[in-house]
Amino acid sequence: MQENAAEENPTNVLESLTQMLESGTVQQARAMLNALHPAEIAHLLESFPAAKRNVIWELVDAENDGEVLLHVNDEVRSGLIDEMDEDELLAAAEGMDMDDLADFLHDLPATLIGEVLRSMDKQNRQRLEAVLSYPEDSAGGLMNTDTITVRADVTLDVVLRYLRLRGEIPDLTDSLIVVNRYDRFLGVLALSELLTNDPNMTVAEVINQDMEPISANMTATDVAKLFENRDLVSAPVVDDNGRLVGRITIDDVVDVIRDEAERSILNMAGLGEEEDMFAPVMASARRRAVWLGLNLLTAFLAAWVIGLFEATIQSLTALAVLMPIVASMGGIAGTQTLTLVIRGIALGQIASSNARSLLIKEIGVGILNGVLWAVVVGLVAVAWFENVAIGVVIAAAMTINLIFAAVSGVGVPMALRQFGIDPALAGGVVLTTVTDVVGFMAFLGLATLYLV
Amino acid sequence: MQENAAEENPTNVLESLTQMLESGTVQQARAMLNALHPAEIAHLLESFPAAKRNVIWELVDAENDGEVLLHVNDEVRSGLIDEMDEDELLAAAEGMDMDDLADFLHDLPATLIGEVLRSMDKQNRQRLEAVLSYPEDSAGGLMNTDTITVRADVTLDVVLRYLRLRGEIPDLTDSLIVVNRYDRFLGVLALSELLTNDPNMTVAEVINQDMEPISANMTATDVAKLFENRDLVSAPVVDDNGRLVGRITIDDVVDVIRDEAERSILNMAGLGEEEDMFAPVMASARRRAVWLGLNLLTAFLAAWVIGLFEATIQSLTALAVLMPIVASMGGIAGTQTLTLVIRGIALGQIASSNARSLLIKEIGVGILNGVLWAVVVGLVAVAWFENVAIGVVIAAAMTINLIFAAVSGVGVPMALRQFGIDPALAGGVVLTTVTDVVGFMAFLGLATLYLV
Repeated sequence: MQENAAEENPTNVLESLTQMLESGTVQQARAMLNALHPAEIAHLLESFPAAKRNVIWELVDAENDGEVLLHVNDEVRSGLIDEMDEDELLAAAEGMDMDDLADFLHDLPATLIGEVLRSMDKQNRQRLEAVLSYPEDSAGGLMNTDTITVRADVTLDVVLRYLRLRGEIPDLTDSLIVVNRYDRFLGVLALSELLTNDPNMTVAEVINQDMEPISANMTATDVAKLFENRDLVSAPVVDDNGRLVGRITIDDVVDVIRDEAERSILNMAGLGEEEDMFAPVMASARRRAVWLGLNLLTAFLAAWVIGLFEATIQSLTALAVLMPIVASMGGIAGTQTLTLVIRGIALGQIASSNARSLLIKEIGVGILNGVLWAVVVGLVAVAWFENVAIGVVIAAAMTINLIFAAVSGVGVPMALRQFGIDPALAGGVVLTTVTDVVGFMAFLGLATLYLV
Repeated sequence: MQENAAEENPTNVLESLTQMLESGTVQQARAMLNALHPAEIAHLLESFPAAKRNVIWELVDAENDGEVLLHVNDEVRSGLIDEMDEDELLAAAEGMDMDDLADFLHDLPATLIGEVLRSMDKQNRQRLEAVLSYPEDSAGGLMNTDTITVRADVTLDVVLRYLRLRGEIPDLTDSLIVVNRYDRFLGVLALSELLTNDPNMTVAEVINQDMEPISANMTATDVAKLFENRDLVSAPVVDDNGRLVGRITIDDVVDVIRDEAERSILNMAGLGEEEDMFAPVMASARRRAVWLGLNLLTAFLAAWVIGLFEATIQSLTALAVLMPIVASMGGIAGTQTLTLVIRGIALGQIASSNARSLLIKEIGVGILNGVLWAVVVGLVAVAWFENVAIGVVIAAAMTINLIFAAVSGVGVPMALRQFGIDPALAGGVVLTTVTDVVGFMAFLGLATLYLV
């Protein structure tokens, strides 16, 4: 069973582990835990409140510590690091890939960073410093330094013998990197070419020069797009002078893709990317309060608009009953357009040349759905309040708000982008503010003009 | 410039192409387009309304057609396929990987499917039928059949000579698959082992038997998790009898990850995964209408609750002004909890054993933020309406609603999962219904009891 734990439903693993801990069968828990892959152990650790998490952390074999630490989120990681002594931390840092080690160093106490650096040989220290010199979310920060380089003028046979002598090839190596004597990138030698060509041929004869190297300054997002579009397993990274500085591998790119997807979903709810599910109540409440406060401001704006029409509501309270419907439908319709546009922007599919077509299409959709649901809501309102005029007013307000929702759904994210604000982060708040204000204004305004 | 088009901002490429088409420099547009990678051409095609899209599609070299079709979304693909004649479609299908071809067949007219099958040799037809026999979103549907298999008893030297004779290794091959004479999976031979070990050793001596094969019935989601957790480039797929049927490669897994991330974001807004940004207005409006209709039902429910308190509102219209604030803050706070819990469920991090701790923590956060913003809103209400009682009532209602929001944020997705409904799809609607109803009920109910 232990061998197959990973194939099992992770929820079941979580339940079993909890039971083992509660029934005190610690040895069994330890065996089960360490049969898992480090990423799976990391997911499990994230599933427990801090107290239990530390108990489980003690059970993880020291040799897995480093890998597990790399897979938990930032908040959980700093909690676990606090539980470790210096020797354990130094042991965990050992054997980490350079890109992982660079990330890890950010979380270590300052005294320990010096110690880690001193424990490395000069070459590795220089490599680490190279990675550290680039931002974490750039190609340079993502790269690893475990490249195998070869010269263009040697034969494949020499390369084959060199590899056998070396005895080891880093994980996720699908190609060797061809450089000149100044470490300038020339191209790649795919392992598949190395294996299928006549060993007497030279590297220069089978080199792939189409593979463009990645600039160390490229953003992680662009790196991910490049890997996706070109189905890469690994890609060389060069500095501004075209000198090879490392390589990026698909496993790190997959993490970037997953993190970005998670971040957009969490950000839409005003949550930080690294939120620990079991963060202390106080810390969690403080972080979320900002988002609630921002939304409170927009709620007050909507309330102020309603306040302008208090007299109207006083004389016709049915308006108070119906008004949230107009605002809410605008918010829902606008969010649909917004979501589509944010995706288009993220994929680089929206520019000024096609924004107009998109706007026209979305307004069309807004009119169609506006009219459809205006009729439905209007009829219900007439039946409910036995008042034809109120049905006409809510139908008109609904149509107006759904058209505004379409316009804002396209306009808000494009405007936010112009101002350098991430539309995925702020788009929803701004949009629902517009649809609330317009919805209340249109409905109560029309009612004031025609109903009372 | 053309060589570097892909490195450029995709929005700039989009703008340049639009200009070229408008100024009639078609040759230039064609050259620019075909210098891009198929996935990039696919993204570009998606960026244009149908009429222009078809003009651009004509410009794409026939040799790129197949790859581009695989990268556009379903809706755009069927539009492009409608524009192609039989010969073009047959040409596009040629040379596709089996998994891609299986997907592609779903979109072809029935007459053509027969033709494609007839054009294949027996072996390939059997392979295709094997892929087609599994659901599209299972390991079997994702797999490719281009495996290179070797026997355990041969020496590495034999394998090396075999590969040279073969002359070609499929893309994304990081290991050969070791099978017995009945095609039963035994393990994998990593290319890195093949390259670093003594050629006189046998495959059996360097085989990796730790690599568990993937069952063809595993879901695509689980396949993606496995690849992520274990940093795989490719993995063998076996049928129920342990016989090798194919392999899955990381490029397809990356597509699964990206599609799932997109789907959750689009689904949260009630949009289908494959929505074409420039779908016809009518089709787009029809699809979105369902979601709007569903939300209208919940809006009517909230309106009905308000309707219960019409008399109270009549005597104190300030309540109508303030009531959306209570509902809206509950929705925002609840969505934060909901988002966290949905992520936890997706990662398998929430089970009955830790749900209680999570609930307690979220209620704690709800109380803290409830009290904080209750005080703020209460004070503003007192100042605005010069009525202390109304401030107390809104503060109490706010606290109540934020606690309910926390409970629903944990409870709603867990209950939906019990009923087999995807929490990411329906969670938001159900949650905001609860927070609207509870918000209006608490605020107007307390007001009825204590204010009028």
